[in-house]
Amino acid sequence: MKLIDSIKSPNDIKDFSTEKLIELCNEVREYLIYCCSQNPGHLGASLGTVELTVALHYIFNTPDDKIVWDVGHQAYTHKILTGRKEDFLKNRQKDGISGFPKMSESQYDAFGTGHSSTSIAAALGMAVASDIKGEKRSHIAVIGDGAMTGGLAYEGLNYAGSLNKDILIILNDNQISIDNNTGALHNYLLKITTSKQYNEFKNRVWNSLGKGSFREQIQKIVKNAKRTILKTSETGSLFDSLGCRYFGPIDGHNIEQLIYALSRLKEIPGPKLLHVVTVKGKGYKPAESNQTIWHAPGLFDPDTGERVVGDSNIARYQDVFGETMCDLCKLNDKIVGITPAMASGCGMNILAAKYPEKVFDVGIAEQCAVTFSAGLASQGMIPYCNIYSSFMQRSYDNAIHDAALQRLKVIFTLDRAGLVGEDGATHQGAFDMSSFRPIPNVVIASPLNELELRNMLYSAIDDDYKTPIIRYPRGKGVGVKWKGEPFTKIEVGKGELLYKGVDVAILSIGPIGNRVSKAIEMLKDDGYSPTHYNMRFLKPIDEEILHKVCQEYKAVVTVEDGSVIGGLKSAVAEFMADNDYDLKFASFGIPDKFIEQASQDEQYDICGYNTSNIYIGVKEIFDSLITKEKKSEKK
Amino acid sequence: MKLIDSIKSPNDIKDFSTEKLIELCNEVREYLIYCCSQNPGHLGASLGTVELTVALHYIFNTPDDKIVWDVGHQAYTHKILTGRKEDFLKNRQKDGISGFPKMSESQYDAFGTGHSSTSIAAALGMAVASDIKGEKRSHIAVIGDGAMTGGLAYEGLNYAGSLNKDILIILNDNQISIDNNTGALHNYLLKITTSKQYNEFKNRVWNSLGKGSFREQIQKIVKNAKRTILKTSETGSLFDSLGCRYFGPIDGHNIEQLIYALSRLKEIPGPKLLHVVTVKGKGYKPAESNQTIWHAPGLFDPDTGERVVGDSNIARYQDVFGETMCDLCKLNDKIVGITPAMASGCGMNILAAKYPEKVFDVGIAEQCAVTFSAGLASQGMIPYCNIYSSFMQRSYDNAIHDAALQRLKVIFTLDRAGLVGEDGATHQGAFDMSSFRPIPNVVIASPLNELELRNMLYSAIDDDYKTPIIRYPRGKGVGVKWKGEPFTKIEVGKGELLYKGVDVAILSIGPIGNRVSKAIEMLKDDGYSPTHYNMRFLKPIDEEILHKVCQEYKAVVTVEDGSVIGGLKSAVAEFMADNDYDLKFASFGIPDKFIEQASQDEQYDICGYNTSNIYIGVKEIFDSLITKEKKSEKK
Repeated sequence: MKLIDSIKSPNDIKDFSTEKLIELCNEVREYLIYCCSQNPGHLGASLGTVELTVALHYIFNTPDDKIVWDVGHQAYTHKILTGRKEDFLKNRQKDGISGFPKMSESQYDAFGTGHSSTSIAAALGMAVASDIKGEKRSHIAVIGDGAMTGGLAYEGLNYAGSLNKDILIILNDNQISIDNNTGALHNYLLKITTSKQYNEFKNRVWNSLGKGSFREQIQKIVKNAKRTILKTSETGSLFDSLGCRYFGPIDGHNIEQLIYALSRLKEIPGPKLLHVVTVKGKGYKPAESNQTIWHAPGLFDPDTGERVVGDSNIARYQDVFGETMCDLCKLNDKIVGITPAMASGCGMNILAAKYPEKVFDVGIAEQCAVTFSAGLASQGMIPYCNIYSSFMQRSYDNAIHDAALQRLKVIFTLDRAGLVGEDGATHQGAFDMSSFRPIPNVVIASPLNELELRNMLYSAIDDDYKTPIIRYPRGKGVGVKWKGEPFTKIEVGKGELLYKGVDVAILSIGPIGNRVSKAIEMLKDDGYSPTHYNMRFLKPIDEEILHKVCQEYKAVVTVEDGSVIGGLKSAVAEFMADNDYDLKFASFGIPDKFIEQASQDEQYDICGYNTSNIYIGVKEIFDSLITKEKKSEKK
Repeated sequence: MKLIDSIKSPNDIKDFSTEKLIELCNEVREYLIYCCSQNPGHLGASLGTVELTVALHYIFNTPDDKIVWDVGHQAYTHKILTGRKEDFLKNRQKDGISGFPKMSESQYDAFGTGHSSTSIAAALGMAVASDIKGEKRSHIAVIGDGAMTGGLAYEGLNYAGSLNKDILIILNDNQISIDNNTGALHNYLLKITTSKQYNEFKNRVWNSLGKGSFREQIQKIVKNAKRTILKTSETGSLFDSLGCRYFGPIDGHNIEQLIYALSRLKEIPGPKLLHVVTVKGKGYKPAESNQTIWHAPGLFDPDTGERVVGDSNIARYQDVFGETMCDLCKLNDKIVGITPAMASGCGMNILAAKYPEKVFDVGIAEQCAVTFSAGLASQGMIPYCNIYSSFMQRSYDNAIHDAALQRLKVIFTLDRAGLVGEDGATHQGAFDMSSFRPIPNVVIASPLNELELRNMLYSAIDDDYKTPIIRYPRGKGVGVKWKGEPFTKIEVGKGELLYKGVDVAILSIGPIGNRVSKAIEMLKDDGYSPTHYNMRFLKPIDEEILHKVCQEYKAVVTVEDGSVIGGLKSAVAEFMADNDYDLKFASFGIPDKFIEQASQDEQYDICGYNTSNIYIGVKEIFDSLITKEKKSEKK
């Protein structure tokens, strides 16, 4: 039996020898690679934290001691060690486990994460609670150097430094977030880790491992390293300035060193930070050699490292964004692109490859992305600020206060809007339409397909588009021709008729309209013929269409890939109430609950707006109209 | 003629001697005190920046050079020097000028502010724009030590440090935000400014001023100080770590020193920070001696410093909050209060006076306030997190991701919800109801009056209240008895009938309901008798009331102190559409535009939901119903 199979809880590793811990790490790494090759996940970050996780559970008494994993991509080993090894085969799947720590999933998940930079503030809250309740326990925030660039991390650090509670911050420094890290903090950490002191220390460890009498050597090194590990290094002055004692850097793949440092730090009161240097993708050559691609590699052959690349005939919306940006930059030299550490995820890398000087990656710092963009716009530049819909929640105030209020043309492009699939509840782009519709000066648009996205990106520069928000989903388009197509203006606030039927009018916004079209084909086979408008704009909404629909139809149906509260449904309901229209009404969209991990298609099903749901729902409306007519005929 | 009267633009001070600049500062200070005594404003911060502002406009070539005033409270002198001296008499008034920098008001206002910590990211955006456009100009962010604790400031700093653009950050360190500052940064800055080096330098300046031959002495000191001012001091390592060269600290009330430092820094490329120490309220004894009260003192006698304190018989909602928190803490020892640097503004100071150990002031760091609260809640504490409605936009994601999604009971109390008066567009609490209504697990309540606020604060602990948001406006209550009243449970999602009439039902939420009651009295005098429900909850909305109203009335009217898009109006319109109800509909609330500075009452008028607006609007509905009936009778 493998060691990994004997671990039902962290208790089971407490009496392991160092050799056994190292053996366990190897087994965990192998298991991670196997699982992620069969069932895609965030492999890179978790390969980098195997030793750290084992050491944390070895030294600390979880779940009583609290570990908060920032973002949570790196917590796979934690899941495996805390009774979820078998469940991990269904990582990120429907009815499986979440890809992120989740309080309702396990008592070992002290705090749910998914978005970045929350761990220090959360762990600090826990530390204060323990203090008030008189409970003695440790509180540990494990945060990457990428997440450390988020303002929330700094706010937490600043407050921790003044409260002087017992909190241990583990800075997991792998020098990369998803794309290469940027920012002064990154340079600073790099300076520390490339300093003479650290390199000398690392070399000593390295050389020693090559020789015999392994354990003795390690012990000797650790003994020698005491001063390094447990003395506040001068290089850590950034953190010391903020009242947080700095220790390190240490090698995050040396379990003996980790154990020694953690066991000592456990006894040191007050806020302290341990700088741990790790390698993203550690121990799996393909992942180490291209860390951006292997952040979340998709399916692959574990032996060869060959990735299963899907059918590439149909572009993803992010590709359309990136390619179109390149075309737009040829037309207008004021255009720039801004991304908060998501260049490869949103297609900004395509622009960066062609025009590196036009792309600004601010790091994991959504607020800065928006306010920085507003600063650019105030001087006549045309910034396209691309942020995933759910991360845009972080810069809600910035979009209101710095862009819309000042009528500045920051062109917000929200990728991953609507249901996102396997990333689950924390990452759903459910609220952007509802939360931005009340904001004055904002235009909210969503394209039906790749070509419309291309043309919206082009049209958004127009004054009429004010401060535009263009939202579109994760994943592939529908395969229409778009690349290199001549640009066409889309008039702001104008929808279009896609299909002319009778009695029932379906209003959709965004690519979900393509599912509506499929449902209409099915309905037509059954002899039903609803009308279909692609609204294109949530704000301003096309009132001409709405008047027409309310006057000429017996029922109206809204379909949107967002919350049914506050978005298209509400806009149409308000319009009907305001104008005293009375017709049958139905709506499809994300219901009032958080939608857990599953495939995107499964989630459409769960939310009741898959093609067949729309087909059935609209059919029922037609049938009810017939029943109603029959009833009134009888009268 | 006074110097101040001759200044039409900053150009007019360019040839001033140091003596004249000092004289101008004295006049400006006098004018500030006079104006603010007659017309309330944020006096304290602006008294602290008189010399700094004069020096900036003396050295830099505004408006070509760009100065971004963080928050903007401190920019009064800037307004006075840039052609708005007369306008300043109507500071913060309807049709007057904004209390904050505002791009549409003056070309000298490079970027609009109001919310905290935006200046560095915005100025950086401008610097990048200048670089791209090949324009040579300076970009200056003036940021207080309080605003520097906001995560957005750090995000900007981190990015500035790596971009290496020409940007000058002036850290205006007055050691106070509105309440006393907290946080490790504060301690760090304090350490610098109390360091031997700085004190020695300050003493030398001080001593020299006492002696004769003033100008010569100053010059000598400045000459001696060169090394201090223009050498990166070791104490500034926090900023140096982030790639931003640190200079200072210097005395922010010594104009000669300021001018020398700024003129030299103007020539130094790259990101740099000048640490300027100022005194909030400088030059006006009452303001210097109690900086929290004199942050925004209201009306006062400029000669005696005696403040005009209004009728104190009626408590403000913030007082009700503070007092009730004290009572609740007696009942439940798990309760704690969290504020992001707004203790005196939200009434948390009342709790802090009684139970200092139960209050946590995280600094100007709304995100941290919420995530820290979520951490507390995860360990069974009951955090009441009080944030002004418009600042809550900063922690939108935290409330969703860290509190609601995890079903954690953070009790959000949003002060300054709805129209806020003189602070104007940046501070309106217009969007909280709309933006939080789509969020699952959230309960949104707003009390009719002081007593209901008290009871909602009490009831919110109940499981039924899930993650509650209790919103209430700035200013005074209506004068009902509340203090020490026994607590009564308010059932979640239940509204109440306030007045039973016929034909027209008015649904209101929050204290705006009291204006509805007054309007109803006027309507009754005219022989109209509408029904009035106090809905209390936006979410879950009382569907029993809604069914009743839709079935028994001819018209329904919604009244809310928030945006008419997405809030109560939308909830009722959605309900009507979903349930196929058809009745006449009208709504009152904040229209789809940003509402500028004016008194709260004027703003209700501008938005069309003052008592008389409601009276007239409802009367018209009654009349239209009569007309309609007559028409159908004729048929």
